[in-house]
Amino acid sequence: MKVVITGGAGFLGRRLAHALLERGTLAGTDGRQSAIRELVLLDVVAPPACDDSRVRAVTGDIANPSVLRETLGTNTSSVFHLAAIVSGMAEADFDLGMRINVDATRQLLEVCRANGNRPRIVFTSSIAVYGGELPPVPAEETALNPQTSYGIQKAIGELLITDYTRKGFVDGRALRLPTISVRPGRPNAAASSFASGVVREPLNGEEAICPVNPGTRVWLASPKSAIDSLIRAYDIDAAELGVRRAVNVPGISVTAGDMVAALERVAGREVAARVRWEKDARIDRMMNGWPGALDDARARALGFPADENFDAMIRQYMDSIRSVRLQADE
Amino acid sequence: MKVVITGGAGFLGRRLAHALLERGTLAGTDGRQSAIRELVLLDVVAPPACDDSRVRAVTGDIANPSVLRETLGTNTSSVFHLAAIVSGMAEADFDLGMRINVDATRQLLEVCRANGNRPRIVFTSSIAVYGGELPPVPAEETALNPQTSYGIQKAIGELLITDYTRKGFVDGRALRLPTISVRPGRPNAAASSFASGVVREPLNGEEAICPVNPGTRVWLASPKSAIDSLIRAYDIDAAELGVRRAVNVPGISVTAGDMVAALERVAGREVAARVRWEKDARIDRMMNGWPGALDDARARALGFPADENFDAMIRQYMDSIRSVRLQADE
Repeated sequence: MKVVITGGAGFLGRRLAHALLERGTLAGTDGRQSAIRELVLLDVVAPPACDDSRVRAVTGDIANPSVLRETLGTNTSSVFHLAAIVSGMAEADFDLGMRINVDATRQLLEVCRANGNRPRIVFTSSIAVYGGELPPVPAEETALNPQTSYGIQKAIGELLITDYTRKGFVDGRALRLPTISVRPGRPNAAASSFASGVVREPLNGEEAICPVNPGTRVWLASPKSAIDSLIRAYDIDAAELGVRRAVNVPGISVTAGDMVAALERVAGREVAARVRWEKDARIDRMMNGWPGALDDARARALGFPADENFDAMIRQYMDSIRSVRLQADE
Repeated sequence: MKVVITGGAGFLGRRLAHALLERGTLAGTDGRQSAIRELVLLDVVAPPACDDSRVRAVTGDIANPSVLRETLGTNTSSVFHLAAIVSGMAEADFDLGMRINVDATRQLLEVCRANGNRPRIVFTSSIAVYGGELPPVPAEETALNPQTSYGIQKAIGELLITDYTRKGFVDGRALRLPTISVRPGRPNAAASSFASGVVREPLNGEEAICPVNPGTRVWLASPKSAIDSLIRAYDIDAAELGVRRAVNVPGISVTAGDMVAALERVAGREVAARVRWEKDARIDRMMNGWPGALDDARARALGFPADENFDAMIRQYMDSIRSVRLQADE
């Protein structure tokens, strides 16, 4: 079977590819487990080289229908659609966000529909679909009134996934991922970038700026939970999802202050002291517009994984850094 | 000031045009009442001839951006966007529904954005945005999980209206109109067409087929209430709407059985006996997927009009027919 990951060169895409290759199989369109023979990583940038013969990298613009058609061919049975313009950038460049987050998603669904083989598609949505006047812990039954362009675009993606699924064109699943923490690498244009930066930079001996109030609450999942959730979402039987194809992925709810306190517990006072509180009104407003906690009961009942607490998420990051360094030393 | 009505040759469009011409003024982009100097009716078919010098008819495809650009020019301050593919047709022809209900709405918003004058736009959404597992009386806080392509397309339209408004490109208002009853004329491809047919055809001496169970509950508004709601939605101060730009328009909740009983009360047993109950599974399923009642408290508090009961709605129709006949006799 052939699997395509859009955004395959990105942080989640590469980790997902690694996890799928290790696992070796996925449910095909017939529901039976089949060996992954081809894993295509589609992205605007090339992924790091990989010596697994199953992996093929395609560099191209996912908003270009011919790139999608050529990449998927007619034999793709599984798609993980992770490619997206992140929140801060979608707010700064409305047209780019619409082009990638909405138009490319629709074109991807159209290519799948034209192929007629009803592939399974896992689409990464976001907690940013929630906004406006919200209860303290929004549920899947809560109306979406996003107050960012990113949130609107992801909400439109969910609606498309739902209707293309209902019409029998694809078998889609949309995951409202919490903010992922701790991401490795450098800060990005997501409004939530600080939620990794306040741990990552201090552990790396650098100062980190926390642009939100200490009391600002965020909804987080670790990279490992996010990847396991993507795979769980793929595996789950369509009948278990029913007509509700958008799922609130489990997370943990912490304040920015909690995060820095956890960093002090796990890595010491000196490390935590490298966090500087300097409010950025634009980011604080976006973050406070997103829910700091979600009702994730359905996902937990459906067997989605959940993190234990933020201390464990910091340790997960420290372990991953250590293993990267060990590999580099070998 | 220049006002554009898309779908201006349709039933609601023509009535709205008539009401606006009678009224003579609308709030401009500065919020002050100005005289309507030009009223453009844009539709795929020509509207009936009109000898009011303020009215101009444009026949064209609203999914064609150049038609929209030419029709709006750069001086349109007010748009009523009524043009749509109705529910039954959007379900039968998915691509046509996407093209008109989604793409044309977005292109209209893009033309307004390019003009830079932040026009007021009233967009007709629908109760069909609700679907899936619903509480008995869904509220504006209830999640949208439409189970029809029409519903998905209208929900996407609402999201676009909300974000183009938040970004300051337009000043939009989305109205979730109940099913309109009693519409004059002939049946159309809307799944809810029967909600007018079971009154209209018997009053006209013809048999009407009711394709749903007598217990199927529908959410209705009269043509007069719908038009008054469109104008109220236009008039309302943006600050009163806040960040929630989609409004549940007031309606009345009746079963198909209630409707026929009302017809008997208002027009007699012989007329009501012309209704034949013959279930159409496809229509019954669509109608039962939509809410039979909505929480319309916000709209009522915002001064939206409401009908009294179905008997009065039948009488409103009988009066309108009588006045059309009187005019024809003159």
